[in-house]
Amino acid sequence: MLSQTVEYALRAMSSLAYRPNDLVPTSELAETTKVPSNYLAKVLQTLAGADLIMGRRGVGGGYRLSRAPEEISLLEVVNAVNPVERITTCPLGLDNHGPNLCPLHRRMDEAARLVMELFGSTTLADIVSGEGTPQLPLCSESMTQQIRIERAGK
Amino acid sequence: MLSQTVEYALRAMSSLAYRPNDLVPTSELAETTKVPSNYLAKVLQTLAGADLIMGRRGVGGGYRLSRAPEEISLLEVVNAVNPVERITTCPLGLDNHGPNLCPLHRRMDEAARLVMELFGSTTLADIVSGEGTPQLPLCSESMTQQIRIERAGK
Repeated sequence: MLSQTVEYALRAMSSLAYRPNDLVPTSELAETTKVPSNYLAKVLQTLAGADLIMGRRGVGGGYRLSRAPEEISLLEVVNAVNPVERITTCPLGLDNHGPNLCPLHRRMDEAARLVMELFGSTTLADIVSGEGTPQLPLCSESMTQQIRIERAGK
Repeated sequence: MLSQTVEYALRAMSSLAYRPNDLVPTSELAETTKVPSNYLAKVLQTLAGADLIMGRRGVGGGYRLSRAPEEISLLEVVNAVNPVERITTCPLGLDNHGPNLCPLHRRMDEAARLVMELFGSTTLADIVSGEGTPQLPLCSESMTQQIRIERAGK
């Protein structure tokens, strides 16, 4: 249901959310997210186009989040690549329906509403905090331990 | 979020659900669903491949539902064209995650679960009954009146 591109965009944003102040090279992002480099480059361009990340070219270049992880919802990431949209008027353009949806389109709209609510209420910070689970997004056992040590030191 | 193909497949199935015992010509389905004929033909082939509808070629030919509208959920229709899948194991293949999802993939799995629940609990019969709303799927004012008269006569 959620596209491969959505999955990859969410991985890339999660990866950047671990280091919100650093410019992370695309090669490093490709490794952490396990996304093919060419595909990832396109996803990053789209995310930059939506002003969710900022890039700098050349030596020492890379990408970083445009805002703090606490201020970026998963829904913004999803919408940047594959927008989730509510149905506000009859998709068939039927005059007698208009904004009054039939049972079919009410269900489809409800699906969009549920997903928007779920992703809209979760930020990148929520995701990478790992709260309520020992698993951190994108992190192997050794990366998890390293992050835990860094966080404990702060 | 739900693809154009999903929308078209649900329209086609709803249209057939109004007349579950008739072979409906593709041209008539294209008109009712407002789906371009070529696109609709492909969608119908996919639905037939998933055994949700049966077709007969030639004069007097067309498509009809394989089962009663009460026995076909919207989820089966969605799954025939764009499967909604739960996430059962780490999509990155991380050893230390496995079936224990991280917060990112738990959210993505939850989105799939919500949509599966919504569409899995609704049948084509629920949709075309028009219960709780004056709008019937795919129906103009005159078609709605005609269906109401037919139903009242039964």
